[in-house]
Amino acid sequence: MSTICFPEHPSPVADAEALRKACQGWGTDEKAVISILGRRNATQRKLIRQAYEDLYQEDLVKRLESELSGDFEKAVLLWTYDPAERDARLANEALKSRKKSIIQLQVIVEIACASSPHHLVAVRQAYCSLFNCSLEEDIISNVSPPVQKILVSLVSSYRYDKELVDYDIANEEATIMRKPIEAKKLDDDEVVRVLSTRNMFQLRQTFLCYKNNYGKSIDQEIMACGKGILESVMKVVVWCIDYPEKHFAEVIKAAIVGFGTDEDSLTRAIVCRAEIDLMNVRAEYFNTNKSSMDNAIIDDTSGDYKDFLMTLLGANI
Amino acid sequence: MSTICFPEHPSPVADAEALRKACQGWGTDEKAVISILGRRNATQRKLIRQAYEDLYQEDLVKRLESELSGDFEKAVLLWTYDPAERDARLANEALKSRKKSIIQLQVIVEIACASSPHHLVAVRQAYCSLFNCSLEEDIISNVSPPVQKILVSLVSSYRYDKELVDYDIANEEATIMRKPIEAKKLDDDEVVRVLSTRNMFQLRQTFLCYKNNYGKSIDQEIMACGKGILESVMKVVVWCIDYPEKHFAEVIKAAIVGFGTDEDSLTRAIVCRAEIDLMNVRAEYFNTNKSSMDNAIIDDTSGDYKDFLMTLLGANI
Repeated sequence: MSTICFPEHPSPVADAEALRKACQGWGTDEKAVISILGRRNATQRKLIRQAYEDLYQEDLVKRLESELSGDFEKAVLLWTYDPAERDARLANEALKSRKKSIIQLQVIVEIACASSPHHLVAVRQAYCSLFNCSLEEDIISNVSPPVQKILVSLVSSYRYDKELVDYDIANEEATIMRKPIEAKKLDDDEVVRVLSTRNMFQLRQTFLCYKNNYGKSIDQEIMACGKGILESVMKVVVWCIDYPEKHFAEVIKAAIVGFGTDEDSLTRAIVCRAEIDLMNVRAEYFNTNKSSMDNAIIDDTSGDYKDFLMTLLGANI
Repeated sequence: MSTICFPEHPSPVADAEALRKACQGWGTDEKAVISILGRRNATQRKLIRQAYEDLYQEDLVKRLESELSGDFEKAVLLWTYDPAERDARLANEALKSRKKSIIQLQVIVEIACASSPHHLVAVRQAYCSLFNCSLEEDIISNVSPPVQKILVSLVSSYRYDKELVDYDIANEEATIMRKPIEAKKLDDDEVVRVLSTRNMFQLRQTFLCYKNNYGKSIDQEIMACGKGILESVMKVVVWCIDYPEKHFAEVIKAAIVGFGTDEDSLTRAIVCRAEIDLMNVRAEYFNTNKSSMDNAIIDDTSGDYKDFLMTLLGANI
């Protein structure tokens, strides 16, 4: 369930004009930017960007880029891109980052395993258009084996997207996965094959069979294999398939916990899930942490950035 | 280059009405079916199918199925489907066939390596819609390793589709492929990785480097590895990437040579390439065999089936 609030039929031309006004003259009217863009869904934002281009022969994203700054700028830009372009840019930034911890690599897993097959293909298309090579090629040049192999297989999937479960296959494939996981060989061909070709509903049943047959959940078993990057990536894979809201609640928690805030991760989780399941992420956060996600974000952020995130969370700023 | 001849702006409604008339009453007017459908491009055929459905609340494909028969029926149906649906059906038929020689397996390679990335994704989408599972899942359940692994990687690709070649990478990857090919390990991870992620222009340069550096072309070297199904599949992969017209000229030759005709392969090659490169296939056929492809097809086929294939080849029947 989505958290954002948006009117039924706003006028893209009126919105584009109001944004133009907000960007003109001395300083920028950030409040106006937040109250317009933060309350429009992806289709509406696309129409606004088009109307803005038609009216002023200027890309709205470029204009916002020159007007805004810091984490607020980054969040507004990500929100203004078409979702496929946004995710292609996030993937590219993660792959080109000098650091390749789970913080970066999980971005690729989220796109591959917590998106619809149709969206994943759209991201791959956008990636080719923006960066002159395929997403797979960039994974290969920037990520080392064995994680490389897992990520390439996952982003290459085009899963069946309806709820169709074969209980015998689920049971059989839970058995197939058992041995390599016991042997701590998480990049085993068969494990990767199952995780990157089966539909999400089928995989959830396979995970359930695994737990029923072996007494422990597959993510617990994966985490028991070690604390390396391979184990972390595989755990994110299972979570993104099984309960993405749990994964994103953890991303948000990790981003704000302790000293300092990981704004990039926080922004990504809110912006990418606001129209998908952020309401469930909020509930999951509360269940796990026994505290309010919204309050935690309010405590850790400030200014226009905070107001923008809160607007995406449905607050009436 | 395409071989079919089609008018600029035919009326889909008039075409649908003429097809309806051809299918009504005692017997079917096959000549009318050929002269209408055989002279319309994919977009025009799609509009005819839609107009037919709107006018008569009946699927044109179903009607043709009940009116026509034999190889002629099969060719007309394949031609009437949307190209993505057609290829999904061809792939499914190949995978479900009890026999799995190169005759069947090459169908999957053609779709993966002799199509645009966009078309390949459309085929995967159509496959899911038609057969309630992904193309990859059906490859896995119907093809044994090591060919299975190669086909899954190839159909999962979404290659960059512009002409962009990195000469250093081409040279480097020719070297990478050399060792496993020398060791006759054609399903080596690195070989499969290169063939299933690089863009077609890049791969053609890699094949050229291979030939320049090692004195023999990569397809010759692959064929020298043995006469098994793995070698045959890999040779088709290289040909479909390097010069698809050569591959399809060979398919047509093999279909008509000797005793009897393999009508399924002949139909597939003509129907699938008529709007892409059948003119080049014809030229390649002549270069290789020093005889006319059209005459060879005329000698080996008859009746409406022959007339339909000839119409797709641009003849004025």
